[in-house]
Amino acid sequence: MRIAFKKLMGTLSSVLKRRGMESERAALCARLLAETDRDGVYTHGVNRFPRFVRMIDARRIDVHAAACVTVKTGALERWDGRRGPGNLNAQACMGRAMEMAREHGIGCVALRNTTHWMRGGSYGWQAADGGMIGICWTNTLPNLPAWGDTVPRLGNNPLVIAVPREGGHVVLDMAMSQFSYGTLEAYRKRGELLPVDGGFDGDGRLTRDPAEIERSQRPLPIGYWKGSGLSLALDLIAAMTAGGLATHRIPADPEREVGVCQMFVALNVTAFPDAGPIAESVIASLGGMRYPGERVLQVREENLRLGIPVEDATWKTVEALG
Amino acid sequence: MRIAFKKLMGTLSSVLKRRGMESERAALCARLLAETDRDGVYTHGVNRFPRFVRMIDARRIDVHAAACVTVKTGALERWDGRRGPGNLNAQACMGRAMEMAREHGIGCVALRNTTHWMRGGSYGWQAADGGMIGICWTNTLPNLPAWGDTVPRLGNNPLVIAVPREGGHVVLDMAMSQFSYGTLEAYRKRGELLPVDGGFDGDGRLTRDPAEIERSQRPLPIGYWKGSGLSLALDLIAAMTAGGLATHRIPADPEREVGVCQMFVALNVTAFPDAGPIAESVIASLGGMRYPGERVLQVREENLRLGIPVEDATWKTVEALG
Repeated sequence: MRIAFKKLMGTLSSVLKRRGMESERAALCARLLAETDRDGVYTHGVNRFPRFVRMIDARRIDVHAAACVTVKTGALERWDGRRGPGNLNAQACMGRAMEMAREHGIGCVALRNTTHWMRGGSYGWQAADGGMIGICWTNTLPNLPAWGDTVPRLGNNPLVIAVPREGGHVVLDMAMSQFSYGTLEAYRKRGELLPVDGGFDGDGRLTRDPAEIERSQRPLPIGYWKGSGLSLALDLIAAMTAGGLATHRIPADPEREVGVCQMFVALNVTAFPDAGPIAESVIASLGGMRYPGERVLQVREENLRLGIPVEDATWKTVEALG
Repeated sequence: MRIAFKKLMGTLSSVLKRRGMESERAALCARLLAETDRDGVYTHGVNRFPRFVRMIDARRIDVHAAACVTVKTGALERWDGRRGPGNLNAQACMGRAMEMAREHGIGCVALRNTTHWMRGGSYGWQAADGGMIGICWTNTLPNLPAWGDTVPRLGNNPLVIAVPREGGHVVLDMAMSQFSYGTLEAYRKRGELLPVDGGFDGDGRLTRDPAEIERSQRPLPIGYWKGSGLSLALDLIAAMTAGGLATHRIPADPEREVGVCQMFVALNVTAFPDAGPIAESVIASLGGMRYPGERVLQVREENLRLGIPVEDATWKTVEALG
C-alpha cells in the first residue's frame, strides 16, 4: 500500500508521543523516519520503527534524553547522547558540526553513548542542504568478521559522505560490508540472489544467497582486507574521539544495541565560490554514469506524489503501536 | 641487493641537490623516499625515484617551489602546492593541519596544484607519531573506471587513516581500486596471479592476471559500486575544498600527472586521556587478527638492521642519475 507522507509522519509521531516523547521532538523524529521511506531507503525507516518502539518500551532508548556537549576544544566537541533517540541525537550533532564549520571552516562532533541513527544518509543530506560537505559515520554492534576471521568482531560501521550540488547533492551512504544486513534482508524477502558474492555460507564458501549469509553472520567486507581495515579505523576514531564504546563492547543483539559512537564532520565550502562549478564539472565528466544519491530525488518526487510504499503487514504493526 | 638506510638517503639527496634542490629540502625529500622503502612499501619509494627525477628534469615538478597558504578560515586552510615536490608539500600540509588541531581540536588543509605525494602513508605516520589521528587523501589522474563503465574516468584516490597507539600505530593506506597499479606491477614482476579478481581483461571478463588489467586499464573498485562512489566523493571533496583540479582535468599520463588536490585532516586526541586505553582495548579485542600497519614496525627493524632491499637494476639507474 501507499501512505501519504503527512499521514505517515503523523502516525509515527503520535506513537512516539504516546510513549511520552515531547511533541516537537516526536514530530522531528517521525519526520526523519518518514523521510527515509520517502527517499526510498525502505530498510531503515518504517520497517525499523517497531524495533525502535520496542527499545523505548524496554527503556533501552530514553525518549526524554537529548544529547549534550561534554568537552569543547574549539572546532571539535565531545557530546554525550545519553541513550536518547539516535536520529534526534545525530541530527543535533550534525547541526552543531555545521555551526562550528560556519565559524572555523570545519567542525566536528564526536558523539558517544547514543543509539541507532537509523538512516545515516539523513545527516549527509542535512549538511548538503546547508551547502556544506558532510562526513559522518557510526560504529555498530559486532556484525562483520575481519578478513580472514570467522567471528564477527568488527562492525559494518556505515559511512556517509555528502557533497552539496545545485543540480542534486552527491550522497554516499554505505556500510563496510558489501551488503548491509538491511539489504540482505530485502534481497531475501524478494527471493533474489545477490548480484555478487556477499559473504560466506556455513561451510566457509563464498555465496550470493542472502539467507545463508544472515545465518553464518559472515558477510564480506568491501574490498576484502581493505574494508576490514577501514571498518577498524572508523571504529577506533569514533570511540577514541568520543570517549565511548568501541564495537567490541556493544551488545551483539540489535534489540540491545545501545551506547554506540558517531562522528560528524562538516566542511563549510559555502565560503569558496569556486566549489560549486567544480562539482558541476566533475558530475558532467562522468559521461552519464550514475552518482550516489542521483536516484533519490526522483524516488522522492514519486513517493510524495503517489504516497510512500509500506508493506501492509508493517503498516498494521505500526498502527497497532498507537 | 641491500643498501644501508643512510647511504640510500644520501644518494637520493645528492641526486636532488644536483637538480638544484636546496640542501635541507633535499634531505627531507630523500628521507621520506628512503623511509618508504625502509617500511617495506617498495612500490612507492626508490622505484618511483627515476620518474620523479624525470619530472624535475622536464620542469613539471619545481624543486624550488614550497606550498603556501592562500585562504585561512580558522581550522580549515587552502594551500597552493605550486607544483613543488609532492612529498615535501604533503609533509608541510599535514604538519600545518596538526598545528591547527593543537589550537582548535581539529585542523584541515586542502592543498591544490601539487604533485604525486609518493607514499600516502608517510603523512599518516607523521600524524600518529605526533599523537594525533590523521586522515588524508589525494586525487589522481583518471585510472579507474566507475562501476559499470569501461573508461577510466575516476582516480584510484588513495586514502590514508592513521590512529596513534603506544603499541604501534594503526595506519591504513589504501587506493580505491582493489589493487593499485603499483601492486599490479609488483605481482606481474613476481609472475604471480592476484589473490582475488582485480579487474577486467580486454574482453570484459573478470581476471586475476595483473598484466591483463594493466593493459585494459580496467581495475575493479573496492566493493564494486561502493568504491566507485567513494572515489568520486573523495575527488569532489578534495577539488572543491582546495579549489583545484578534479581527476577528469588531470593529464592521464603518469609522467605528466601534476596539479592534483589533497586533503589533510588531524584530530588532536592527545587532549583526551581515555583515547589511548580505548585504542588498546580495540586491538586486544581482535583476537590476534592483524591490523593495518602492524607488519611495518617489524619490516622497518629488519630493513634498518640488514639494509634496504633495492633491485640491482634500480640501484644502477639511481646511481646514474647522480
